[in-house]
Amino acid sequence: MSEFFPDVPKIVYGGPDSKNPLEFKHYNPDELVGGKPMKDHLRFSVAYWHTFTNPLSDPFGAGTALRPWDDGTPTVENAVRRVRAAFEFLEKLGTPFYCFHDRDVAPEGKTLKETNANLDAVAKVLKEEQQRTGVRLLWGTANLFSNPRYVHGASTSPNFDAFAFAGAQVKKMMEVTKELGGLGYTFWGGREGYSTLWNTDLKRELDHLGRFLNMAVDYKKAIGFDGQFYIEPKPMEPTKHQYDSDTESCLNFLRTYDLLGHFKLNLETNHATLAGHEMQHELRMAAAAGVLGSMDANTGDPMLGWDTDQFPTNIYLTATCMLEVLDMGGWTTGGINFDAKVRRESFEPVDLFHAHIGGMDAFARGLKIAHRIREDGRLAQFVRDRYASWDGELGRKVESGRATFADLEAYILPKGDVTPNVSGRQEMLENLINEFI
Amino acid sequence: MSEFFPDVPKIVYGGPDSKNPLEFKHYNPDELVGGKPMKDHLRFSVAYWHTFTNPLSDPFGAGTALRPWDDGTPTVENAVRRVRAAFEFLEKLGTPFYCFHDRDVAPEGKTLKETNANLDAVAKVLKEEQQRTGVRLLWGTANLFSNPRYVHGASTSPNFDAFAFAGAQVKKMMEVTKELGGLGYTFWGGREGYSTLWNTDLKRELDHLGRFLNMAVDYKKAIGFDGQFYIEPKPMEPTKHQYDSDTESCLNFLRTYDLLGHFKLNLETNHATLAGHEMQHELRMAAAAGVLGSMDANTGDPMLGWDTDQFPTNIYLTATCMLEVLDMGGWTTGGINFDAKVRRESFEPVDLFHAHIGGMDAFARGLKIAHRIREDGRLAQFVRDRYASWDGELGRKVESGRATFADLEAYILPKGDVTPNVSGRQEMLENLINEFI
Amino acid sequence: MSEFFPDVPKIVYGGPDSKNPLEFKHYNPDELVGGKPMKDHLRFSVAYWHTFTNPLSDPFGAGTALRPWDDGTPTVENAVRRVRAAFEFLEKLGTPFYCFHDRDVAPEGKTLKETNANLDAVAKVLKEEQQRTGVRLLWGTANLFSNPRYVHGASTSPNFDAFAFAGAQVKKMMEVTKELGGLGYTFWGGREGYSTLWNTDLKRELDHLGRFLNMAVDYKKAIGFDGQFYIEPKPMEPTKHQYDSDTESCLNFLRTYDLLGHFKLNLETNHATLAGHEMQHELRMAAAAGVLGSMDANTGDPMLGWDTDQFPTNIYLTATCMLEVLDMGGWTTGGINFDAKVRRESFEPVDLFHAHIGGMDAFARGLKIAHRIREDGRLAQFVRDRYASWDGELGRKVESGRATFADLEAYILPKGDVTPNVSGRQEMLENLINEFI
Amino acid sequence: MSEFFPDVPKIVYGGPDSKNPLEFKHYNPDELVGGKPMKDHLRFSVAYWHTFTNPLSDPFGAGTALRPWDDGTPTVENAVRRVRAAFEFLEKLGTPFYCFHDRDVAPEGKTLKETNANLDAVAKVLKEEQQRTGVRLLWGTANLFSNPRYVHGASTSPNFDAFAFAGAQVKKMMEVTKELGGLGYTFWGGREGYSTLWNTDLKRELDHLGRFLNMAVDYKKAIGFDGQFYIEPKPMEPTKHQYDSDTESCLNFLRTYDLLGHFKLNLETNHATLAGHEMQHELRMAAAAGVLGSMDANTGDPMLGWDTDQFPTNIYLTATCMLEVLDMGGWTTGGINFDAKVRRESFEPVDLFHAHIGGMDAFARGLKIAHRIREDGRLAQFVRDRYASWDGELGRKVESGRATFADLEAYILPKGDVTPNVSGRQEMLENLINEFI
Ligand SMILES: [Co+2]
Ligand SMILES: [Co+2]
Ligand SMILES: [Co+2]
Ligand SMILES: [Co+2]
Ligand SMILES: [Co+2]
Ligand SMILES: [Co+2]
Ligand SMILES: [Co+2]
Ligand SMILES: [Co+2]
Repeated sequence: MSEFFPDVPKIVYGGPDSKNPLEFKHYNPDELVGGKPMKDHLRFSVAYWHTFTNPLSDPFGAGTALRPWDDGTPTVENAVRRVRAAFEFLEKLGTPFYCFHDRDVAPEGKTLKETNANLDAVAKVLKEEQQRTGVRLLWGTANLFSNPRYVHGASTSPNFDAFAFAGAQVKKMMEVTKELGGLGYTFWGGREGYSTLWNTDLKRELDHLGRFLNMAVDYKKAIGFDGQFYIEPKPMEPTKHQYDSDTESCLNFLRTYDLLGHFKLNLETNHATLAGHEMQHELRMAAAAGVLGSMDANTGDPMLGWDTDQFPTNIYLTATCMLEVLDMGGWTTGGINFDAKVRRESFEPVDLFHAHIGGMDAFARGLKIAHRIREDGRLAQFVRDRYASWDGELGRKVESGRATFADLEAYILPKGDVTPNVSGRQEMLENLINEFI
Repeated sequence: MSEFFPDVPKIVYGGPDSKNPLEFKHYNPDELVGGKPMKDHLRFSVAYWHTFTNPLSDPFGAGTALRPWDDGTPTVENAVRRVRAAFEFLEKLGTPFYCFHDRDVAPEGKTLKETNANLDAVAKVLKEEQQRTGVRLLWGTANLFSNPRYVHGASTSPNFDAFAFAGAQVKKMMEVTKELGGLGYTFWGGREGYSTLWNTDLKRELDHLGRFLNMAVDYKKAIGFDGQFYIEPKPMEPTKHQYDSDTESCLNFLRTYDLLGHFKLNLETNHATLAGHEMQHELRMAAAAGVLGSMDANTGDPMLGWDTDQFPTNIYLTATCMLEVLDMGGWTTGGINFDAKVRRESFEPVDLFHAHIGGMDAFARGLKIAHRIREDGRLAQFVRDRYASWDGELGRKVESGRATFADLEAYILPKGDVTPNVSGRQEMLENLINEFI
Repeated sequence: MSEFFPDVPKIVYGGPDSKNPLEFKHYNPDELVGGKPMKDHLRFSVAYWHTFTNPLSDPFGAGTALRPWDDGTPTVENAVRRVRAAFEFLEKLGTPFYCFHDRDVAPEGKTLKETNANLDAVAKVLKEEQQRTGVRLLWGTANLFSNPRYVHGASTSPNFDAFAFAGAQVKKMMEVTKELGGLGYTFWGGREGYSTLWNTDLKRELDHLGRFLNMAVDYKKAIGFDGQFYIEPKPMEPTKHQYDSDTESCLNFLRTYDLLGHFKLNLETNHATLAGHEMQHELRMAAAAGVLGSMDANTGDPMLGWDTDQFPTNIYLTATCMLEVLDMGGWTTGGINFDAKVRRESFEPVDLFHAHIGGMDAFARGLKIAHRIREDGRLAQFVRDRYASWDGELGRKVESGRATFADLEAYILPKGDVTPNVSGRQEMLENLINEFI
Repeated sequence: MSEFFPDVPKIVYGGPDSKNPLEFKHYNPDELVGGKPMKDHLRFSVAYWHTFTNPLSDPFGAGTALRPWDDGTPTVENAVRRVRAAFEFLEKLGTPFYCFHDRDVAPEGKTLKETNANLDAVAKVLKEEQQRTGVRLLWGTANLFSNPRYVHGASTSPNFDAFAFAGAQVKKMMEVTKELGGLGYTFWGGREGYSTLWNTDLKRELDHLGRFLNMAVDYKKAIGFDGQFYIEPKPMEPTKHQYDSDTESCLNFLRTYDLLGHFKLNLETNHATLAGHEMQHELRMAAAAGVLGSMDANTGDPMLGWDTDQFPTNIYLTATCMLEVLDMGGWTTGGINFDAKVRRESFEPVDLFHAHIGGMDAFARGLKIAHRIREDGRLAQFVRDRYASWDGELGRKVESGRATFADLEAYILPKGDVTPNVSGRQEMLENLINEFI
């Protein structure tokens, strides 16, 4: 049972006064918040790629990760041993979900056929471990960006074969995801963009991406996979520009290619900041359009211009996120997936535990804070009151689409000017939020 | 005739060897490029607000502009004198167009009624000067952001009266634009966004903005104004976030509120860079969606995070812009409007001439470069060839929407892997562009 | 006594459970933290310019501030009324200090002589109010950036007269600061930089700035002013580049011009972030060089590229700041000056109270958190232990400057490679910090 | 002779009308510019790491580089074959210089001793090829960042052994550089910074870095190496913060640790932009302090926040750089080293030629433009005239350090206000520059 992390016990709730770095101080899975257990509010997931496959290299240095179970070979045996380590980790940590790319769990072979066989072999072990532990697959995904065959894109590659290979790869991974009972399937187009517009037919590439996702929708029906499809926006890196840049570019894309009913968004904090947006903005905008599906929880460094994918520990951030989630009624198929990696300098196995415990505690606090803000009610009431002038006759007429500019003029011209504005009270509201932090 | 700029003659074409700062070195209005006069390719416009109204203040200092004709009073008399100076400037410079906001040209009165009367009085003089000089109105617009009544937004204000006032103001300005023969009307929502999400009902505000623009479309029909409507995206400043952030957020918005056929975009270089995009990207993306309407030509400073609105002099930028414009077939209703201001340190009237001459020359060179790149044909050919693998049977099947993932798998699985990729040749293409600079 | 803020009582400590927006929830001036009253740890100061003079305009809109006591005239009478309002505010808020620029408090006249007279007239009232209330001047400063005469810089202007005027202005303001018992004098070179290098003799300008500050040091001795001199770094805005950009550029400048012993730094959070640095970095770097003098407390918005000067409410930020301050032994002459402004949308007088209360509470919490982190000791112990390998014989030899590369080679060559590194434990430490938040 | 690039001939000058991508269009090595051959003005160098060692991977994908001579093994045999390919490339391209890190050219062994032996073995071949071709070593450097032993820094590591190993490594590489007749030696501290301040003793680390460089200076004397020492600033990446951030932080560091006379700076364009500075700023600032030593020529993408290290093709950039270089009197020991890599999508050997040819042509044009701007004289004259008011008696008195604030007051008080400012003419000067582009 304790082959891979012999020094780490099952992580338990020690309460806020615990000084044990290997205990939860706030995450207490069965504790009720607003009548619902914390674990069901939060639906935590571990990202296989960062936690079990990432060697912790960076563009200026080799990997540092010490993973005793990993012999570095691209074999199914090594991959299976990694699965065993992963599920020991998941069990000890106690997250109900995990996520993975096809290439995280199983090595590529010489041909697609061989690669598919490798994936099947490892998927069998994943299924076995899922059944043993009860950990479930939040969503699956295919890695369409690491292999040099995708150097110019996958579904947007000028090389038609890359598109075809990607289609076959996603087909297979949708099947595996279904087999493993995955609740969803995510598309992140890491190479679906451009390095320079000088060599790029942007319109043709967008059309290809649209076709690709429509084929995925068709195949989903064909095999009766009823998981939720997600798109994960990111504006850049590794590309100069990625077509699915942020919530609104994704929405525009989905509307353009008649895909809107078939996809929700999986929003990542660090991708939001790279796009120049607050995570709060992205969540609110997605929720307003009914497409907020799941979250890749991490944090960026606003002073750095790349995807640092750090573990989230800032409770302002987590409270803000959970407020948006509670406001939309909670997760349905989605959850909080830690798409985060330990620093290259944090290369020991135990750092993986510290990192996830910290992230889970931060979200547990965020949940409780958000719940208390909602219970308190002052914030929501302030916002409602602020728009009260719209609830008059003419305001309602405007909102229902029956008013004209002439109506507005007839109203305001005799009045001469507007009823005075009142303060937006931003500072008071920031203080109000601080009452709950 | 030469009351306001007594030391500045009519600006003429002196050719590339001229060292006279008050001559064009490249812009030669009637010179044919690809069979069409430069002036018709470029359709230059001067922005009234920056060139005739801006006092050249900044957040840390008072205005420095020396404008002998401006006595600083908010009177119609002063406004009319400014119109005379403006048209002397336009005549001497030789741009065929100008643009203005209602509040640039005429002072506000105590009531909307008084304000409308002021606007009418000045519009009469504008019309007279248009007729005298032949200069035309590229587009009109209403300033819905400077007056404190719009502190919380105009059509997105929580104060219904602000919405109503804005509606009446736009109604009036649409009438004035029609009266002056304006070829278009632009919406820039400088306060249509938020300062903090804590006090904001984002969805309700977006709905109000959607209603507002639909009312504008209705009123356009009602009065038979046949100019083109434009939205000008900008991501932030003065707001923390502006709803019409970039090309794709505008497209998403227009699709959501059934406005797509009624609007094109007026893209500004500095707004693109504030949104984290190249201008080339924004132009290409808008053209791909058929909504590239007009351009606010300027340049930002990529090291600075605010809208510096500098005059464009970089010929890489202007060549890139003109290539996108020529590729879409040239302007129809739109043109190149210099939404640019002289630096606060360039406070003398003659600086206004230097600035515009430099911008016009830079675009003239950009036009000639873009034309030669197109005539040469190597760039376009490279891009066409790059996608040649898509022109096979299966590629065409995919593009026409008749292929499935199973088809792709049947093709690629026996093949094992993709036909090798070839280099994207970015460096060679950058050198190719340099052949024309 | 309550002429200007009739509805606002003296702000008192209501404790963490208070829901009254006009009470302190954490700042309890006489409460001891580590044996010293909070007020002496924090030494809060109000910035006259933002709180009493700023009309809350922005580059796209007119001022919105409602200040009933301000009739908008540039008269000494209006200025004196503003002083009375300011001191009522200071008394009710209970900050022990304030700061001001010469031009915040008194209007400019037609000549420098007249201007000096105006300043003297108002300074008399300031002194009177200081004596009445016990509020003290943390530092004075001269505004060398707003007036158009400084359009090209003050001490770095190519116009020698601007340099001369600036010298006379600083001379006067040093005298006034001394007269008012100011504990310090700050130099912020808002125009001491460039808009473009094309027209700039950078070396000559830096030399002039060096001369200017040496003259200030001389004059300080001449009049026996024993306050502390500060430089406040900022990298840009309003200039494209400001010479005193960040801690290290200031240090380089001070070393170059033999000024190091005479100046400390006044560090502002938003200026740090504009320079691409964390405030923690700037504070630590300044403290390491012995020049951390005072703090302009505010916060920027990392998504926005200009100086938003928002009130600080984030307790991670305030705890981090206070940890650096406690680690250097606390303030001597300096303090925490709120160089922050209410949002343009927060235009009512009461917003000024909300804003300062929130900032003071946030710093009070930051102080208590920092104190507890230091009492706990685990963080400091971790850092000490991390460098333990340096405490051996060869490490000490290196540190004392007696070792050579040959010594190092002789040690490591036989060893072959280094003793294995251990994890940097960033995630564990971030969790540790969260124990105290 | 043509084993490795069989299809690429010696690159010759074809003139501006050449359409051959494998000919220079502007770089004509022996052509005189201002009486000096272009090759001596420019002193081009190829960066071994990017051009011969970089596999073109990125954080999201494996290497794509096709390098037929490289069998991927970490053997001396493979390394020697790479040297042969490199010198064929250098010969065909015709750059007079190259630069390398110790670990670029030779593989690490199991111990430092073995590694040194590998380096010696390869250095022998480098020397042989240098003699054969006449290509010289512009500077050498040690890679103190890629190996996991430097995960926490090299000279700033908390692990003393890393410091010792780094010292021994630099010692060896200084010897090799001397042996190869290197004209300089560069220090880039890729890991000399921090990932988080929470675990960092910043002052102690800076002191260690200061000691390290002093030991290098001592060893330089000890072995009689008379090459120039350089520091290459970079603000971040891979670290969150690198101590040698920009020109001024380096200057402050050098002054603090008494190293100023021993080091010059090697400035890289992309590092300047990451630090928020124009390259023009960094060059000008370094030249003003007499420490502009050499240049790592490349370009960043201002829309991207990481070190893209692209080849420079923008002639505004190269003209600006060469103007600063000519203004300081030209290179002495330094030169223009292309620290630039082809895009991951440009993976074929011929792309390496396109890239360097483009960079060399761009700098050749930049040189000619800069020379013409200097010959023309209008720009320099404008700047001189702009400061003319400083050449009066009082200005000279100030500049020579004999004036006081009282002198300034005595001059300006009777005058009342300054002699009016004149425009800074930024737009006119930008147009002037465009005359030469
Ligand atoms: Co993600
Ligand atoms: Co990410
Ligand atoms: Co614009
Ligand atoms: Co703009
Ligand atoms: Co400040
Ligand atoms: Co500030
Ligand atoms: Co470099
Ligand atoms: Co670089």
